[in-house]
Amino acid sequence: MAGGRQAGMDDRRRTRPAAHELARYEALFAARTRGMKSSAMREMMALTERPDVISLAGGLPDTSTFAPELYAKLMAQVAAESTARALQYGPTEGMAATVDCIVEVMAQEGTLVDPSEVIVTTGGQQVIDLVCKTLIDPGDVIVAEAPTYPGAVPTFSAYQADVEQIEIDGDGMPIDALESTLDRLHEQGRRPKFIYTIPNFQNPGGVTMSLARRRRLVEVARERELLVLEDNPYGLLRYDGEALPTLYSLDAEAAGRGGSSDLVIYLGTFSKILSPGLRLGWAVAPRPVLEKLNLGKQGADLCSSPVTQMFVAAYFSERDAHGGAGWIDYVQRLRDLYRERRDVMFEALAEHFGEHASWTHPQGGLFIWATLDPRIDTTDLLALARKNEGVAFVPGRAAYVDGRSGASSMRLNFAGVPEAEIREGIRRIGRAMREQLGLLGSLTGAGGPTPGQDHAETGGSEGGAPAEQQPSAADGSAHLADVVALPPACPPLRGVPFRVRRDEAPSARRRRDR
Amino acid sequence: MAGGRQAGMDDRRRTRPAAHELARYEALFAARTRGMKSSAMREMMALTERPDVISLAGGLPDTSTFAPELYAKLMAQVAAESTARALQYGPTEGMAATVDCIVEVMAQEGTLVDPSEVIVTTGGQQVIDLVCKTLIDPGDVIVAEAPTYPGAVPTFSAYQADVEQIEIDGDGMPIDALESTLDRLHEQGRRPKFIYTIPNFQNPGGVTMSLARRRRLVEVARERELLVLEDNPYGLLRYDGEALPTLYSLDAEAAGRGGSSDLVIYLGTFSKILSPGLRLGWAVAPRPVLEKLNLGKQGADLCSSPVTQMFVAAYFSERDAHGGAGWIDYVQRLRDLYRERRDVMFEALAEHFGEHASWTHPQGGLFIWATLDPRIDTTDLLALARKNEGVAFVPGRAAYVDGRSGASSMRLNFAGVPEAEIREGIRRIGRAMREQLGLLGSLTGAGGPTPGQDHAETGGSEGGAPAEQQPSAADGSAHLADVVALPPACPPLRGVPFRVRRDEAPSARRRRDR
Repeated sequence: MAGGRQAGMDDRRRTRPAAHELARYEALFAARTRGMKSSAMREMMALTERPDVISLAGGLPDTSTFAPELYAKLMAQVAAESTARALQYGPTEGMAATVDCIVEVMAQEGTLVDPSEVIVTTGGQQVIDLVCKTLIDPGDVIVAEAPTYPGAVPTFSAYQADVEQIEIDGDGMPIDALESTLDRLHEQGRRPKFIYTIPNFQNPGGVTMSLARRRRLVEVARERELLVLEDNPYGLLRYDGEALPTLYSLDAEAAGRGGSSDLVIYLGTFSKILSPGLRLGWAVAPRPVLEKLNLGKQGADLCSSPVTQMFVAAYFSERDAHGGAGWIDYVQRLRDLYRERRDVMFEALAEHFGEHASWTHPQGGLFIWATLDPRIDTTDLLALARKNEGVAFVPGRAAYVDGRSGASSMRLNFAGVPEAEIREGIRRIGRAMREQLGLLGSLTGAGGPTPGQDHAETGGSEGGAPAEQQPSAADGSAHLADVVALPPACPPLRGVPFRVRRDEAPSARRRRDR
Repeated sequence: MAGGRQAGMDDRRRTRPAAHELARYEALFAARTRGMKSSAMREMMALTERPDVISLAGGLPDTSTFAPELYAKLMAQVAAESTARALQYGPTEGMAATVDCIVEVMAQEGTLVDPSEVIVTTGGQQVIDLVCKTLIDPGDVIVAEAPTYPGAVPTFSAYQADVEQIEIDGDGMPIDALESTLDRLHEQGRRPKFIYTIPNFQNPGGVTMSLARRRRLVEVARERELLVLEDNPYGLLRYDGEALPTLYSLDAEAAGRGGSSDLVIYLGTFSKILSPGLRLGWAVAPRPVLEKLNLGKQGADLCSSPVTQMFVAAYFSERDAHGGAGWIDYVQRLRDLYRERRDVMFEALAEHFGEHASWTHPQGGLFIWATLDPRIDTTDLLALARKNEGVAFVPGRAAYVDGRSGASSMRLNFAGVPEAEIREGIRRIGRAMREQLGLLGSLTGAGGPTPGQDHAETGGSEGGAPAEQQPSAADGSAHLADVVALPPACPPLRGVPFRVRRDEAPSARRRRDR
């Protein structure tokens, strides 16, 4: 599988159907797909096969940290003990040994679960799909965060859901805003089918829901009898601060049902603590919902791969040098690595984005959310950056169901690429950004940006004709922009406990947090 | 992963939600899942983890034929060359190296495909799901065979399709019956979204669509501009007779588009020629449809496992002892093994089902379709057989969307179990069948079945009260029953070219066919 062959493949895939070809099939398409277009995620996935682009776009962990010797050893173990079972179909709900690993991961998250309430899925993505399949009729309401996981947006659209997005701030989803939305929906006689939230190191916002809000969210769900889909892929990838309880465990406590939540559907995955290539995630759900998820999965793919499930089971029986669980040791090594990379990205952003942007300071996970001058549309910027600079990111619009909000923001992955590429990637994006700002400046006659011209000034300027062609960015990222790092002259904001102060070196920060 | 643990898991899973628990969530479920119940396939999957049951139920190949040493070697190769890539996300459409293997398999099927029109999926099942996702709005029509693949039934139901099933005979789907159905639908102003067919060694019927019908089906599709979903998991598993061209290749020829069909969506899988545990299948589709399948897959599971995709790529580069393609050599070994097993099942059926049943004589694939005395409901028989005899099969109703037809038929898998288990399994089912017939006889006062009482007589008898409680079986399996093996006294039927004559020993048959 040479690099050239990959590139060739990529070229072949670029041929899109001609208009007359499309017209022939258009009438046959379901309503759910008729308006569907290739999403930002599709482009991300395609980029993963191209070696010439620095991609800060994917939701990729760094899989080069996994020792090939261990991979070979574990696979040899599966081969020796159970080749025939690994190569065979497995039960739809997952193999018992894999479910036991999931219970172990959940315990590390401080959450006890009943193994009979777990279903193994083909990645966390399948949980989102199956939950929609189970609950969503066209026009049904889902309440989500704004911005939200870009990969959930096309799924919600495919089920023709009506998604209400609640702007998040530095403490995650504000529950008073959620309640206002629920009240408004109630007045319209509408009850959301579920509330979708990523409480830890939100994708793409990077923020974490506070404990007070978690407690209040569970109360609201119980008062109004609403299901919550808790998407928690990164909970164990915390680099600073204290872990917070899962919504699942808080609801189980409130329900008093001995470890089982009755309103929270929990989404977990091995993708970020081990490998996305295994395509293994899971849901923990109230039993009646679990039954439907299982039925949905039967129709979707029968079962998830026993080959990769048995790899996980073998992996979880590994010990570290001190006799502890090997998988926890690996997660700790990922934490140390990703913390360094996050801090390198902070530094690079300060150096190359400085006056023209602000960004969040996540305590964990994979992503930083950066918001640029409101005249910049990051979808256009991505095209420019890819073409001229060979660098990619997720444009902010991908995180909004309307496809218009978040236009001046971007999601940056700091976990999947080495430090040198982070620095170089951010440098390139910064250059593309300044190029575009310069162009905007010359069109409006305002001149390009100058050092010292701060974000507030740039944002406040009237854009004239070219700016009018850009959709407004202000609606999409206002809240988040308020809590992100501002130029040194600005005073620190209150009420943002995790906010990293710009005048503190990353190394000092790390010492304090450990 | 001890057997006991598996059994324990299985016990845990038996706890179903209580009625009051269900009521709480019922209002939240989507219309598509509200009426969904656990399907026969679910039970099949659960059975695969239980060692105490002889299961002739699953769609299982025999994965114990795959050498653990080769498994370990291939995985070590992937580890040495590309651990990081295997463990990472891959492109949604599949890895180029895996697509190349697919093109190679298709060539063996006598079908040239453009690699850019291939998408790698999470098993063949996902193709069915994605095609429905792309094309089916609630109430849309799918035309399928009767009986049809039991695993497609819940998928069609989940998309709320209106499925028209066309009774098959020994030559597969009769195209005149298809045309009558299409005419009737046309009068109602309805155009099917696609025609679903399994032309080779049909699941569950075991019959193969004749070349004349294949040609005519493609003509009809082109005349009426209809899409066809050609499900071909077993094409290469042919034990007797000559291979027939795929519908895809026939349509590509008719379209004159250099190897690309414009109306056939082809479904293939590595499950039956290599391993279902890899969860890798594929679709080849006209480009505008392919685009939508890709979008649907993004929302469903992002990509299929690179771990298993790279295993396939490594496997396909293996050579056999003579320098030929190792994978073809393995398929040849499967053919020899499954042919033997099929013939053992023929013998066991003649011995233990003899006078009370008839069955199809497939030239390939995994399944025999047996039709019993019409007073027997195989769904009830399955419960009895599992409980009293520790043996399982797929009840015929699972192959009908109405859940009522096919009630006296069953699908039997001869490929996945050793010869001794085939003999013992059929013996046990035969015993359960006779027990139930005896019970029916004593209830109606007609006495149990006696040797020499043939199928036609039993079928023609009036069943009285108990028979009335059973749904009619005649509608579901009449056509197939006509072409299956009848007791020795009956003359061979005409127009069934592949029909194996009962008076010919299996070994003689094999000599002739090779």
